[in-house]
Formats: sequence, C-alpha cells, structure tokens
Amino acid sequence: MDITRFEPSNLYSAAVSAHGFLFVSGITPKNRQGDVRAQTREVLAEIDRLLALGGFDRSRIVSAMIWVSDIRLRDAMNEEWVGWVGDHRPARACVEAKLADPAMLVEIQVTAAA
Amino acid sequence: MDITRFEPSNLYSAAVSAHGFLFVSGITPKNRQGDVRAQTREVLAEIDRLLALGGFDRSRIVSAMIWVSDIRLRDAMNEEWVGWVGDHRPARACVEAKLADPAMLVEIQVTAAA
Amino acid sequence: MDITRFEPSNLYSAAVSAHGFLFVSGITPKNRQGDVRAQTREVLAEIDRLLALGGFDRSRIVSAMIWVSDIRLRDAMNEEWVGWVGDHRPARACVEAKLADPAMLVEIQVTAAA
Repeated sequence: MDITRFEPSNLYSAAVSAHGFLFVSGITPKNRQGDVRAQTREVLAEIDRLLALGGFDRSRIVSAMIWVSDIRLRDAMNEEWVGWVGDHRPARACVEAKLADPAMLVEIQVTAAA
Repeated sequence: MDITRFEPSNLYSAAVSAHGFLFVSGITPKNRQGDVRAQTREVLAEIDRLLALGGFDRSRIVSAMIWVSDIRLRDAMNEEWVGWVGDHRPARACVEAKLADPAMLVEIQVTAAA
Repeated sequence: MDITRFEPSNLYSAAVSAHGFLFVSGITPKNRQGDVRAQTREVLAEIDRLLALGGFDRSRIVSAMIWVSDIRLRDAMNEEWVGWVGDHRPARACVEAKLADPAMLVEIQVTAAA
C-alpha cells in the first residue's frame, strides 16, 4: 500500500499517510515571541493546514501527544485546546519536555484516521 | 470508516477506536498517596477497564509509552508491569517526564489492535 | 487479525506487527562509551535489523519519536539521521528526556507501514 509524504524537509515530512491514517509531525510555533496561548493557537492552525493536505480535518484526529516546556503551562494550553478540539476529542497525553528551542513553549503531534 | 470515542471528558477521550486500533489516552493514577508500585497497579487496572470498553484486552496491546516522574522509579514500575503484561509484550518505550501533578509518579499510554 | 511479536524480552517485544504496521520499541545503544553520533549510528543500525525481522525496511517508516538526553545533542544526532533516512522521511518529533541509563544519549522509536 502507498505511503504519501507531505512537505518533506531535510529531516522529516510534515505529515505522512498510510493505511488510512495520517501521521503529523510534532508541530512547534514559528513565532516564539508570544505566550503559550498564542503559540498553541499557531500550532493548532498549522495542524489544521497539514490535516487538510491529506484530505483530513480535526474531527478525524484519533490521538494527540502534547509537550509543554513547563507543566504549569498546561492549563493555559488547554484553554486553547478545548475551543479548537470541540466535540471530537482524541485520546491524548501531555507531559513536560525541553523542546528544540528554549523559546518554544508547546509542541503538538497528532494522528488522524480517514 | 467509523471513529468511536469512549468516555470523552472536556479535554480528550479516554480511548478512541479507528481502523481496528484502539488508542488509549495516557492514564495517570487518581490515588496519588501510594508509591510507584501502587500507582502502576491502579493505572494498569484502569487500562484493563478502558480496553474492555472497546472490546479489547491486554493481550491485544501492540505498543506502550511509559513516563515515570523519576527514572529511578523504572525498576519498581517494571515489577508491576511484568506481572500484568504476561506473555503479550508490546513494543515499548519508557522515559522520565514531569507529569501534570507532582504527586503522579507514572503515566502509561497504550495502543491495541483488534 | 494476527499480532506478531518479535524478540520478546521479559518487559517488551523489540517489535510488534498488526494490521500492516510494525511498531518498533524505543531503541537505545548497547555501547554507551561513544558520543551521540556513534550512539545514533548504533541505534539506527539496530532499527534496520528489527525492521527486516518483520519484512520492512527504513523506506517504510511513517513516524519516528526521538529522545535526546540533552536537547543540545539534537544537531549532532540529526547529522547521522539525515544520512540514514535519505528520501524516506517520516513524520517525526524530537524532545529532551532523561533515559533509562545516564550514559544513554539517544533513544529512537519508529513505526513502519507495509
């Protein structure tokens, strides 16, 4: 069966589809000046864009992994997440981790099903 | 194909099934007074319950992600894990991470296949 | 449908296949004397070996999770990764985490599709 790779950079593809699933890379904000709410909004908008590349949308997300750079940012991140995810809540885990750039406060990775 | 969401809360679903897989959320203990062994037992019992909601059981787990709040707790967690998982050992990774509440010592996320 | 477990140890299987996917465990280096580049090369060679057990190869990897013990090791790890992954770039996330042994500098987990 076919594997489709969307927007490959030198290190990874932004998303990859196979067997009816779309695997999206961990997405971090490009604009790192904002607070965790602004960064979360940017990440979720980018996830919307990447899901659409594969013909998916946020209602098809089945699992999500969220890293915050400080676990105390979880509540503020969640306030943005709740409005975005609506009734289509995936399985999820959220833990603290140091991300690629200290100015990144949040990274979100999702998997969607056709 | 259908996506089924089990026990949705405001942030996520406890488990989501799609294309023959069940994605269970990262499960943490509700009782945070106990040591890591007691917390692991509670988490694994909750995973048993959630797997059953989707018609799965622990013999169908294909991959597991485990976070411990201190990597030195890994051996004690593993002692509970070994007895629970029996011969049906999934692919697995286990790393240290700060969890949502400092009293949480372990979080476990599994994926099962029909 | 069948679940096949490859190289089960007492805690987990090195890889598990189900529904056309191969879930490989988080792989860490056995030789922990080397720098992160040497450790990454060893881990990637072991992933090649495990993929082959299930009839897969690195061109079939759809997603990868990478943990480095210090996020500043990411660039050196990436230099090995780029040469290995070639044009078949999976979706990916990479964060810092404390691993099972302080001498381990990198752990990589992949999922492949038939």
